[in-house]
Amino acid sequence: MSYNQKMFGLGSKRSIIREIFEYSKMRSAEIGADKVFDFSLGNPSVPAPAEVNATIKELLDTQSSVLLHGYSSAQGDAGVRGVISDSIKSRFCVDMSPNLIYMTCGAAASLSICLKAVIEEDKGDECIVFAPFFTEYRVFVENAGGKLVISKPVDKTLEADVKDLESRINEKTKAIIVNSPNNPSGVVYSEETIKALCALLETKEKEYGHDIYLIADEPYRELVYTNVNVPYLMNYYKNTLVCYSYSKSLSLPGERIGYIAVNPEMNDASNIYLAVCGAGRSLGYVCAPSLFQQVIARCIDAKVDIEIYRENRDLLYNNLTEYGYECVKPDGAFYLFVKALEEDAYKFYERAKAHEILVVPCDDFGVSGYVRIAYCTDKARVLGALPAFKALAEEYGK
Amino acid sequence: MSYNQKMFGLGSKRSIIREIFEYSKMRSAEIGADKVFDFSLGNPSVPAPAEVNATIKELLDTQSSVLLHGYSSAQGDAGVRGVISDSIKSRFCVDMSPNLIYMTCGAAASLSICLKAVIEEDKGDECIVFAPFFTEYRVFVENAGGKLVISKPVDKTLEADVKDLESRINEKTKAIIVNSPNNPSGVVYSEETIKALCALLETKEKEYGHDIYLIADEPYRELVYTNVNVPYLMNYYKNTLVCYSYSKSLSLPGERIGYIAVNPEMNDASNIYLAVCGAGRSLGYVCAPSLFQQVIARCIDAKVDIEIYRENRDLLYNNLTEYGYECVKPDGAFYLFVKALEEDAYKFYERAKAHEILVVPCDDFGVSGYVRIAYCTDKARVLGALPAFKALAEEYGK
Repeated sequence: MSYNQKMFGLGSKRSIIREIFEYSKMRSAEIGADKVFDFSLGNPSVPAPAEVNATIKELLDTQSSVLLHGYSSAQGDAGVRGVISDSIKSRFCVDMSPNLIYMTCGAAASLSICLKAVIEEDKGDECIVFAPFFTEYRVFVENAGGKLVISKPVDKTLEADVKDLESRINEKTKAIIVNSPNNPSGVVYSEETIKALCALLETKEKEYGHDIYLIADEPYRELVYTNVNVPYLMNYYKNTLVCYSYSKSLSLPGERIGYIAVNPEMNDASNIYLAVCGAGRSLGYVCAPSLFQQVIARCIDAKVDIEIYRENRDLLYNNLTEYGYECVKPDGAFYLFVKALEEDAYKFYERAKAHEILVVPCDDFGVSGYVRIAYCTDKARVLGALPAFKALAEEYGK
Repeated sequence: MSYNQKMFGLGSKRSIIREIFEYSKMRSAEIGADKVFDFSLGNPSVPAPAEVNATIKELLDTQSSVLLHGYSSAQGDAGVRGVISDSIKSRFCVDMSPNLIYMTCGAAASLSICLKAVIEEDKGDECIVFAPFFTEYRVFVENAGGKLVISKPVDKTLEADVKDLESRINEKTKAIIVNSPNNPSGVVYSEETIKALCALLETKEKEYGHDIYLIADEPYRELVYTNVNVPYLMNYYKNTLVCYSYSKSLSLPGERIGYIAVNPEMNDASNIYLAVCGAGRSLGYVCAPSLFQQVIARCIDAKVDIEIYRENRDLLYNNLTEYGYECVKPDGAFYLFVKALEEDAYKFYERAKAHEILVVPCDDFGVSGYVRIAYCTDKARVLGALPAFKALAEEYGK
């Protein structure tokens, strides 16, 4: 066994989501896909806006193949970065520059690159995440040579708990990841929380005499269903890096396109940007896919129809709470985070499965006793599942 | 300065190719692009085959947006992997399986992932490359925690030198990268060389009691101009990983699409495949771009027109040798590796620049005293440059 055992571990450990995926396929073949209420995958169920495919065709018809499919510069096409920079300027009143935008192969790449750019592995750097958190954060932090530290949420609301955060920050803290709207809870952190969090980080930066980077993981920014404000973190904290992806906002998760934006107000902004470029190079990212870079620039204001998600959210939230489930009403993303009806979320998942309901037990997300319902699915599946959810609750005496 | 200084170094060190790129743009603005003979970039100058754009349009017209642009599984769409596996079977008589194909975001990703999968950083693993070699190998090996070791080529022919390799192998050797057709020399290693190399590796595996992985970096496999055979390394050595990219063979370098193939004859093939999956996950690669995966499956036998490259090669090789330059006639890729007319390749590059010729001095490629001419350009540029090459040679008394 002379290969890398850690990588083997990462590749062979079957994630629960993957396990459910395989079960769902098998079970659908047995009883019919319409009878399996699979809510496990965060794969958008809404098509990309019509502009996307129309733009691809127009690009194919009007641009030279050599330019269109050719390498862009490593940080991304200058024109594309200009469009994104202008959009950030006008939407969030940040004095963004194209020279602080780095195009990436989606959110996972954005995060991996940012973490690699700021974490110094030989110094024992730590990165704090707020539970519940997307499980892959652990993989990305560890690949960058950092240690993952989990901050517990406020009970009931599942907001970031700034007091808990304070107890976990120490001189080794190099970065904090904020993911709002949140996967898996759908919670949007309030402006009050963000302000308290940023004030704490500023205090701690002074106390320890070094920068602490706030990494905003924002693939769900555009998926918000209430009149709630999603604070743009650069407006609250100067050492902010924004990781964006068009996976959810344009329903293009397979095309791997997103960006990193470095706050122009950051200490050493241009040097951090160079570290981002270096980290991208180090991880083998030559450039973000060229065709889709051009698509993004031309569809920057396009939107997917989120009414379908909103309807599903309302149907599930209203009915499940009526049946006796406890959950936080999500303001954004397409997840409902539901308290399991017994202590062990895995056992609850198994009992739900007997009702043909497939949800994800969330112990790996840093909060035990919860399951995630991904409602990025058609309404028929939600409607079909409601009686099963009801029966399941009744089984628990609700 | 609390960010990662190594990443900052990687991002801020201006590569010579980048430097030339900027100079070329500036100079073109001054005297006109047709008067600047820029041979610095390895960006294909031949359009993608017509099938590519036609296939994209057909996919957009016939497939659901949600499926077409959605996530594929991490290792790539099963159908696509099946097509590639069948192609490898029929072309190279290898008993390939779709379950040993891992789709990637191009050759740099393929290499980064393979190296991360096999190198164990805590063991001081080493990876040997044959000079001249693509400079980014150093970055990828070091990111995986390995040490790069350079093996010197056979004088004049620039073939891999198996005797030199033998002197560099030791018990820490974990991997060897073979890049044939070679960037920057265009040399195709002979079957004789490959056989000797593989025999040596087998002996050394036994001697040290552990596997040594042969990583075949093959983006130029389809770009061959003579009747020469490019040995498929899996047929010669069982512990072989093939890194492939469609960047050059289909002129799609910006779309970042390629694959890793694990030899089914390998010790622990399926475990190594899992380590590859884990390494991809660790580096932030969620899946290879979905649309282009489907394009590849439908255009698997499409070919770019390499006659333009062949013509350029012949024009340059025949005339430059007549003017007194020394170079190996390249069998493949789109590079001519020319001995500088003075010892210092950088000084020679500067004097060529005075004739408006832009070539890349290759000291970073592990062989001093050479420059690389990338002839993936239109014929007019080659014809325009010939008098300048002649004048330059005459200046050196040729």
